[in-house]
Amino acid sequence: MRVDAPTRLDAALTAMAEAIDGQFDQLLAVPQDQRARLYEAMRHSAIGGGKRLRPLLVKASCDLFNIGWESAVRTGLAVECIHVYSLIHDDLPAMDDDDMRRGKPTVHRAFDEATAILAGDCLHDLAFSILVDERTHPDPFARCELVRALALSSGPAGMAGGQMMDLAAQASPYDLPTVTRMQQLKTGALVDFCMEAGAILARVPEERRVGLRGYARDLGLAFQIADDLLDVEGDAAVTGKAVGKDAAAGKATFVSLMGVDQARAQAQLLVDQAKDHLHGFGSEADLLRDVADFAIRRSH
Amino acid sequence: MRVDAPTRLDAALTAMAEAIDGQFDQLLAVPQDQRARLYEAMRHSAIGGGKRLRPLLVKASCDLFNIGWESAVRTGLAVECIHVYSLIHDDLPAMDDDDMRRGKPTVHRAFDEATAILAGDCLHDLAFSILVDERTHPDPFARCELVRALALSSGPAGMAGGQMMDLAAQASPYDLPTVTRMQQLKTGALVDFCMEAGAILARVPEERRVGLRGYARDLGLAFQIADDLLDVEGDAAVTGKAVGKDAAAGKATFVSLMGVDQARAQAQLLVDQAKDHLHGFGSEADLLRDVADFAIRRSH
Repeated sequence: MRVDAPTRLDAALTAMAEAIDGQFDQLLAVPQDQRARLYEAMRHSAIGGGKRLRPLLVKASCDLFNIGWESAVRTGLAVECIHVYSLIHDDLPAMDDDDMRRGKPTVHRAFDEATAILAGDCLHDLAFSILVDERTHPDPFARCELVRALALSSGPAGMAGGQMMDLAAQASPYDLPTVTRMQQLKTGALVDFCMEAGAILARVPEERRVGLRGYARDLGLAFQIADDLLDVEGDAAVTGKAVGKDAAAGKATFVSLMGVDQARAQAQLLVDQAKDHLHGFGSEADLLRDVADFAIRRSH
Repeated sequence: MRVDAPTRLDAALTAMAEAIDGQFDQLLAVPQDQRARLYEAMRHSAIGGGKRLRPLLVKASCDLFNIGWESAVRTGLAVECIHVYSLIHDDLPAMDDDDMRRGKPTVHRAFDEATAILAGDCLHDLAFSILVDERTHPDPFARCELVRALALSSGPAGMAGGQMMDLAAQASPYDLPTVTRMQQLKTGALVDFCMEAGAILARVPEERRVGLRGYARDLGLAFQIADDLLDVEGDAAVTGKAVGKDAAAGKATFVSLMGVDQARAQAQLLVDQAKDHLHGFGSEADLLRDVADFAIRRSH
């Protein structure tokens, strides 16, 4: 019996979302003291929102190397902590100044700015706590490698560096190579980590990670182009956040630089390339192939 | 030839400050791209300021167990990353809204709020990157333990949780047990980490860490009482930051709850207690004894 790809992906996303919500619910039990508000803010942002695509990517990369469900979920949870912390901080008035996220008020709107800053900081710590726990992997060397890779992906040479470039873009719009570089840091670096996670957990040597890196790079850009298309053509009620913000801020995007048609064609090309990078794998890479197709499907 | 304690401590602090500045200078080399401003902001806050007391505490706890200079400096550097990141975020307008820090404009004043938030976030990542590097310790298990302990000390059950309690204090002033609890989290948790670091690096079993924990708890409170005394009696030109802020905000402090004389006596009692916890150690604990005396000397 053949299961069609969208159904298979939906089932995997649903299972991962339930697992991530369950883990956050346990980890973020609200204490009965003056820190309750801080935990409430973390729960507001971390539980019950988001597609959990990054944890699913971790799971998909774990599938390639026979890494089990618990390691995949815990590593995916750590990535999601970083992702959620970055959303909280990026939404702040001093940054992108957003009021809505995932269909709910942003943390600084639902609580206040100070609580939002601290809630982000605490999720940032939580990510690394999760990775060094032996339930993530019995081998401490692999745990150290996960920490090293995640800190690199989220810091100034990764996500935070990309956000800095994005803020600087308000001064003068970027050209296509610079937008590409910015997005590779801002959103691509965490995707890179997700794909590398399975290889780290399986202690796969560097030379066998080349295809995964190619897939991650192409997928990350395809997702970003699709995001830019959604920002132009999307509906705030569907995306759960404000749309048209980049154009309003005078920022260059893939769509403003290439036009809608070429951006759409480029995204398709990147998805095809991403799947080509998986040619050495069999059915164990099917989830990764589904995710690649999904990257552009959601913007059609 | 006898070296008197203040001189010995000053020499140790100077050596550590030079080592920390040198490490930050190397790690934070400014890239020639749009992220330059982010690195400049990190350098502004991280280099050339502060007494580096936390790294010195790490070194002092390493002295107890024959852990060498490089491990001590790198572990101390990680703590200092966390300390500096917390100062940047705590100084933000949404938090304590401070203009001066360590005799210089705060990061959001010298740069801007968005850059300050990101610079803090990046130093936060840097702390964990440093700990998992094998130069910190050859054994990955010890490195994982350092990450686990530091993330615990800085997160919602430690420093960030204490800052949340401090923010909540503006609504209704705390009593003495609550102020004590708040300070144990806000500043005590990182001191606890510093003292535990040597034991982790030396793989000392839990039952041999009891004295160190007692020392850390007493020292952390003594330092905080001395800080409160400086806030009341200090000179902004000497402390390098605003004074009298807690009283102006209507917050309870050790001094407002106990009065100057009792606070001073309590700090002395805590320092004596802290040193008592070191009775099982010989001259290898002299640096810790010097630090304990220094905790109250600076407020006289």
